Amino acid sequence: MNNKSFLGRRDFIKTTAIAGVGASLFTPNVLFGKDDRKVRLGFIGLGSRGRGHFSRCLQRNDVEIKAICDIDPEAITISKKMLQDAGLKKVQVYDSSENAYLKLLEQDNIDGVIISTPWLWHTKMAVATMKAGKYAGLEVSATNTLEECWDLVNTYEATGMPCMILENSCYNRERMAILNMVRQGVFGELVHLECGYKHDLRDIKFNPGVSFGPGSVGEARWRTQHSIDRNGDLYPTHGVGVVSNYMNINHGNRFVSLTSTASKSRGLHDYIVKKAGKDHPHADIKFKLGDVITTVIKTANEETVVVKHDTNLPRPFSLGLMVQGTEGIWMDLDHKIYLEGKSQRHQWESLSNYMEQYDHPLWKKYHQQAAGAGHGGQDYFVVHAFVEAIKRKAPAPLDAYDAAAWSAVTPLSEQSIANGSQAVAFPDFTKGSWMKKKPIFALNDSY
Amino acid sequence: MNNKSFLGRRDFIKTTAIAGVGASLFTPNVLFGKDDRKVRLGFIGLGSRGRGHFSRCLQRNDVEIKAICDIDPEAITISKKMLQDAGLKKVQVYDSSENAYLKLLEQDNIDGVIISTPWLWHTKMAVATMKAGKYAGLEVSATNTLEECWDLVNTYEATGMPCMILENSCYNRERMAILNMVRQGVFGELVHLECGYKHDLRDIKFNPGVSFGPGSVGEARWRTQHSIDRNGDLYPTHGVGVVSNYMNINHGNRFVSLTSTASKSRGLHDYIVKKAGKDHPHADIKFKLGDVITTVIKTANEETVVVKHDTNLPRPFSLGLMVQGTEGIWMDLDHKIYLEGKSQRHQWESLSNYMEQYDHPLWKKYHQQAAGAGHGGQDYFVVHAFVEAIKRKAPAPLDAYDAAAWSAVTPLSEQSIANGSQAVAFPDFTKGSWMKKKPIFALNDSY
Repeated sequence: MNNKSFLGRRDFIKTTAIAGVGASLFTPNVLFGKDDRKVRLGFIGLGSRGRGHFSRCLQRNDVEIKAICDIDPEAITISKKMLQDAGLKKVQVYDSSENAYLKLLEQDNIDGVIISTPWLWHTKMAVATMKAGKYAGLEVSATNTLEECWDLVNTYEATGMPCMILENSCYNRERMAILNMVRQGVFGELVHLECGYKHDLRDIKFNPGVSFGPGSVGEARWRTQHSIDRNGDLYPTHGVGVVSNYMNINHGNRFVSLTSTASKSRGLHDYIVKKAGKDHPHADIKFKLGDVITTVIKTANEETVVVKHDTNLPRPFSLGLMVQGTEGIWMDLDHKIYLEGKSQRHQWESLSNYMEQYDHPLWKKYHQQAAGAGHGGQDYFVVHAFVEAIKRKAPAPLDAYDAAAWSAVTPLSEQSIANGSQAVAFPDFTKGSWMKKKPIFALNDSY
Repeated sequence: MNNKSFLGRRDFIKTTAIAGVGASLFTPNVLFGKDDRKVRLGFIGLGSRGRGHFSRCLQRNDVEIKAICDIDPEAITISKKMLQDAGLKKVQVYDSSENAYLKLLEQDNIDGVIISTPWLWHTKMAVATMKAGKYAGLEVSATNTLEECWDLVNTYEATGMPCMILENSCYNRERMAILNMVRQGVFGELVHLECGYKHDLRDIKFNPGVSFGPGSVGEARWRTQHSIDRNGDLYPTHGVGVVSNYMNINHGNRFVSLTSTASKSRGLHDYIVKKAGKDHPHADIKFKLGDVITTVIKTANEETVVVKHDTNLPRPFSLGLMVQGTEGIWMDLDHKIYLEGKSQRHQWESLSNYMEQYDHPLWKKYHQQAAGAGHGGQDYFVVHAFVEAIKRKAPAPLDAYDAAAWSAVTPLSEQSIANGSQAVAFPDFTKGSWMKKKPIFALNDSY
């Protein structure tokens, strides 16, 4: 463990975090001069997702990559090639064992670590990173259990080292314009929101053919097992993160309770039978995961939020986002909006009529840099935010409390389903401080 | 009470109802000859909705209107004018008191009664109608409480007289084409469905201005009070009826349980303040009804169904219908469909590509007669079905069990909300017979 790797940062952050960091601290103090600070990063996990972040950082002149870690030889080989192509040499490689990441964390010259590993490794790696005095940038979903949610927030509070949940979905251009509109009161007071992860993952859960587990390809190696053993919303944060920012969850609001209901489970079995026949051994697997999981959350400010998880059936992709307030309603499906007194009565209109006016300052400023980055540019912004927060020794704009509250939907959903859709209370991971914390996410055009 | 008004019908129906009427009985036995049977109807409730049915029936040459009943002098005046215009004279009028409908039910020469009154009158009028040996055609929602649900089914079982819930929404052309597709297996096995009633009713709940209750206009006279006193899905059947037919509810399937969650209540108060200022006495009213009510139902066959009630906020109309199965998905919003192996991968296509192929036989046969009838022609079919069922002495295609199961969503939703979204069990109004009953709704092109 090393807490001197970034001069004085640890104590600085600890103090401000405990005091409750407000928006004012986020005003960049360096915008009026040239900013030549470099942020030194390590990468744990260099699969497809990790290499996306890695590639972004290779293109940034404010990032120095100091170390990479993966146990998959192919991931290391490809990453080394990327480093070589970028003309970089002095990068430590950790690939000897599953725990090699702990060696990476011992490196003195690393300020932050981007963690893009299978779900079961997320929390323990982020906790170790914070304990090592480094910023943790953690891929989604952040945790698997409620205890892990507490591990994240408790470690953050004990170390003062920020943990940012790398929820790229929050940085989508349309969704940020809607955030802008929400904050400007265009929808009035928020009443009801919807989101989800509706994504046919069958050819990701099985790859190639109907393979999964060791020897298969990509996420099929580890993700599919969750569909066998768990029944709940396994992947909530892409949607929940977006609407949490709209509702100021953990910043004047919080999730209070949820119910969750699972449909029958058919999709994955059917896929196996279609692809490999009913005599294939995988045709006997019982998948616990219901094909469609519907969760309904109630917030302290009395909004309701419907969250869907729908990954086993044939369908077009959608996050199913919707924001409904006292003055209007938006849905991402076909980018429709209706605003009282503005739209033609009872008629949807296109959000494009409002996009220019409400384009978020971050997108206005960085849309060119973001062009070509993954997921329609989102991936540019999430890395940008992580790097800029480190550069400023500032709290993470999406923090350990967010990671905990959003990811907690998974175990709470499992609990509710296991008990016949019983209503389940959310822990208050902020221990009451949500009442006084002000919003910090994307307040201006800096990050 | 009179059970001789339609020769032998009562006993006939009683026997077949108790034996469990199958599809075969619905084969019309008169299609091969000219059908000159007349159905003699009475009308209780001749407000806007009742006059819609009334007007339909005036146009049918297989209906004789024998009596009308309303306590609103204006409704009677308009209806009499309509009768006069149609050249009809011998129609009894009952308008003396709230209980004048009981006198109508004593008339010997009436086979069926269409009931279009405020909600609190629905069940008691339908029960009295069945007890009088007449077919009851009951507007939606059919009941207000669980006890009333039982009243409907118990009276049906005791009298053998059918009670049809006049759910016009089931007869929409697109929705019936989807029913056709569901029955032909186009969506594979059903997994998840959605529906609701998303309709900005603010200028119906307040009319004129911010008036409601006695002295106001139309449904504001009685409907608004429900928003003051009740918190639950107050109007479930337009959506629940449609998806129930898709899932064979009460015919091989049943609703098992639900949870319901209410958002804050803002819309109606805001509307009053916007229209009449914060000093208007109505600005002090506390509306118990949450603006958006989200209910999640689980069925015996393990489908999940999301039901929305959303009537207090500015928004375009939608029933929010969605059907998701192992082979594809449809939603009514913009009439989108995705079918595995047919649609372009991950892309919605227009349902119009399939409408001709799957147009329901009823619509194929009667679309010209339906043209111009209310709600896009739906209203033609629901009256047609009621009349044809009476003509054939057949069970109602949407019956007392359907009325009970669909309408029960209201009190169960109130219960769940009152107990923090607790899961609530559905009564089995069929007393187990759902396991052996075969679907009867819209099996062919007769009604």
